[in-house]
Amino acid sequence: MEVKEITNRDVDFAKWYTDVCKKADLVDYSGVKGSMIIRPLGYAIWEEMVKVLDKKFKETNHENIQMPMFIPESLLNVEKDHVAGFAPEVAWVTQGGKEKLEERMCIRPTSETLFCEHYKKIIKSYRDLPLLYNQWCTIVRWEKTTRPFLRSREILWQEGHTMHASAEEAMAETLRMFNIYKEFQEEYLAMPVITGEKTNKEKFAGAKKTYTIEAMMYDGYALQNGTSHYFGQDFAKAFGIEFVDKDNKLRTPYQTSWGVSTRMIGGLIMTHSDNNGLVLPPKIAPWKVIIIPIGDVDDKLKELEKNLKEKGITYKVDNSNKTPGFKFAAAEVKGYPIRLELGQRDLEKGLVTLVRRDTLEKITVAFEDALLEITKTLDAIQHNLYEKAKERRDKMIYEAHDYEEFKKIASTKSGFIKINWCGDEACENQIKEETGLKSRCLIADEKVDGKCPVCGKEAITKIYFGRQY
Amino acid sequence: MEVKEITNRDVDFAKWYTDVCKKADLVDYSGVKGSMIIRPLGYAIWEEMVKVLDKKFKETNHENIQMPMFIPESLLNVEKDHVAGFAPEVAWVTQGGKEKLEERMCIRPTSETLFCEHYKKIIKSYRDLPLLYNQWCTIVRWEKTTRPFLRSREILWQEGHTMHASAEEAMAETLRMFNIYKEFQEEYLAMPVITGEKTNKEKFAGAKKTYTIEAMMYDGYALQNGTSHYFGQDFAKAFGIEFVDKDNKLRTPYQTSWGVSTRMIGGLIMTHSDNNGLVLPPKIAPWKVIIIPIGDVDDKLKELEKNLKEKGITYKVDNSNKTPGFKFAAAEVKGYPIRLELGQRDLEKGLVTLVRRDTLEKITVAFEDALLEITKTLDAIQHNLYEKAKERRDKMIYEAHDYEEFKKIASTKSGFIKINWCGDEACENQIKEETGLKSRCLIADEKVDGKCPVCGKEAITKIYFGRQY
Repeated sequence: MEVKEITNRDVDFAKWYTDVCKKADLVDYSGVKGSMIIRPLGYAIWEEMVKVLDKKFKETNHENIQMPMFIPESLLNVEKDHVAGFAPEVAWVTQGGKEKLEERMCIRPTSETLFCEHYKKIIKSYRDLPLLYNQWCTIVRWEKTTRPFLRSREILWQEGHTMHASAEEAMAETLRMFNIYKEFQEEYLAMPVITGEKTNKEKFAGAKKTYTIEAMMYDGYALQNGTSHYFGQDFAKAFGIEFVDKDNKLRTPYQTSWGVSTRMIGGLIMTHSDNNGLVLPPKIAPWKVIIIPIGDVDDKLKELEKNLKEKGITYKVDNSNKTPGFKFAAAEVKGYPIRLELGQRDLEKGLVTLVRRDTLEKITVAFEDALLEITKTLDAIQHNLYEKAKERRDKMIYEAHDYEEFKKIASTKSGFIKINWCGDEACENQIKEETGLKSRCLIADEKVDGKCPVCGKEAITKIYFGRQY
Repeated sequence: MEVKEITNRDVDFAKWYTDVCKKADLVDYSGVKGSMIIRPLGYAIWEEMVKVLDKKFKETNHENIQMPMFIPESLLNVEKDHVAGFAPEVAWVTQGGKEKLEERMCIRPTSETLFCEHYKKIIKSYRDLPLLYNQWCTIVRWEKTTRPFLRSREILWQEGHTMHASAEEAMAETLRMFNIYKEFQEEYLAMPVITGEKTNKEKFAGAKKTYTIEAMMYDGYALQNGTSHYFGQDFAKAFGIEFVDKDNKLRTPYQTSWGVSTRMIGGLIMTHSDNNGLVLPPKIAPWKVIIIPIGDVDDKLKELEKNLKEKGITYKVDNSNKTPGFKFAAAEVKGYPIRLELGQRDLEKGLVTLVRRDTLEKITVAFEDALLEITKTLDAIQHNLYEKAKERRDKMIYEAHDYEEFKKIASTKSGFIKINWCGDEACENQIKEETGLKSRCLIADEKVDGKCPVCGKEAITKIYFGRQY
């Protein structure tokens, strides 16, 4: 049976991950190297994410727009740090129909340059600011090694792009959207996340500051799962964007951008799923319940469906002509939060059985209490998944007080390592070269309590290091 | 004032169209030739279309998936009619990062080939059928002459792709989705449409039958505004897709595809808008009402907003520091179905004023009756727009009984011309060459009552001809 083929996640985590992606029918491969097919269940999860986030963006007054997918080479080249970061990994269109293009164009790897070209045309006065835009689209980055959801040549994502009259307002926007990402991932995806500023070395190409959401996966590796950038005026100056301020003087506006992608689906899987397949937090599961009718239970099924619909609880019914055992396993692999067994014999005693996907615990209740039990259990699952992930993560955060200890932890444990840091990129580079760990983010809310373990100089901040996807 | 600059639509329809697109802030141009920026109002209209259609697709059991955006050249080449139709107008990616690709890839102009490659992997048994998929995405066709929404190198669209065990079922699906398009355009877009089968010459590259939605624009030109294709088994055979049927025999499945795009926004504009700007049918307008507060009306504004929210009627408030006159004109150009003037002096008499965008008629009612009047007026506008468009279209449908009459109408009138037709492509070609008119669609429900006016042979059907966008 297909379901049995999932590799044990403690034996080979990488293989386990791709097994889950495949067996749960989230993705398939195609003849297009480096791209994936997102199958119905995978896409339905993305649609849930889009629905929640799009609402949050609109509630904070952002408007959706759609830019071209192409960037002419000369436009990509306008901001020097940006082009240096992205030019090596873009796909180039060189021919349209029968004609060779005069200027080649890349497919957007991100759209700052396109937005800036537009801003220059439409921003004239302080009255035009702030300009709060978002775009849902596909971007392309020419990755050499790809993995479903985590690293792909094509990425479904959203990119927010905003312009402001003052630096303070732009920084407030950068942090506001950063917090929306954090809340979304904790509340909906049940993923405890570590958040903070990236080092200069790791920030987005062209940004002044990058704030990152760092989630720790089951194997202790980090997943950068969303970033928010403050650009200051660098792009605006490079593009010559100016506005007439209230005092009638010409000023240069301040810019932000922020994005999350289908990568979050990979994060979901590597945080919650298990050896039986996908596990989905109820708040992001497209269908909260899978009903498995056994025997002649049509009337009760109809009643239950009516109740679920009224309560707005999404569900599916497995009416296929497979055996109950096969259906149970299929329900598990696909990660429905609750499996509801509606059995003729149980119903004769007035009972139904719920099975929690997170714990596989069986709960038998009276049919009349099913709806209430479902509601309670969905809450309990959401809560439990978050707590379990947090407990695991907290156990995998280490602190190193000198460089020997750092190297020892790095070579024997998986997880994040916290150290004091002098702020010097040389020390960051040395750690990367000698241990393979990269900086995750600065720790804003902890006081420095020692020297930089690499160079021994005064530390200016604490910082996390870790291996990453 | 910007609003005044819209060209008169009876003087220069083409210029009027682009003026409306620009002045209503639906689109902007960028440095990317042939692509457009869809601005917030344009994109919000698209989002409304997506919301309604996506619901209809899901209600008819279609699942959304996401295919790669690239098609390797060898994959595009599998079905010979298809490649002949599309290869001349695709954009080719030849380089990824620093490397020249071994095989160039086009950006999908449509995705039949990608779906077929996937079908071959996942269709094994009759139990896997029907397979009912849809994809929301961007496609690229390398057009030489482009116009906002109507003809663009990048097109936002949806493409449905389905596979069936029998020809009957596939044909039923082709027509079911065709009817969903027709109903959507008539009910939501208030566009009376003519529907029917395309001639062999005009059908989709690779299809056995193409059904088309033909809308007539204000200037009498046709807009092909959605198509649904029946493929039979041609693609399936070319790709070697087979399934084990109930009787344990290997069979080849039957295929459909169907799509509509942002072109519908162009159709909306050219059907309903006027010299003052955009006119939107209430059922597709992202915001049904624009409220213009004049003077100190905060309490009543809050009350009205509360009522509108409770009733689920979307609205905007123009709180800018412009003059009322400026706001009225801006509301007109942006096509809000109802402008609600909430004036301090009117309110002292207990009154508010509604202005219908379609007729510019002013309606003064008691404040307490405002909500009811809004609801009634939205219905009235929706109805009126449809009827007005239908009346105009019906007047611009001509019938020609001989070829001289056809040529005379073609050279003096704009609109559709109905004729009897022998079914011979030679006659269709002759009409195209001599008059510039192309066949729109076969007329299924009218009896033949004469000979083919071109060759004089027996006619087999009636058919519409017309100029097109």
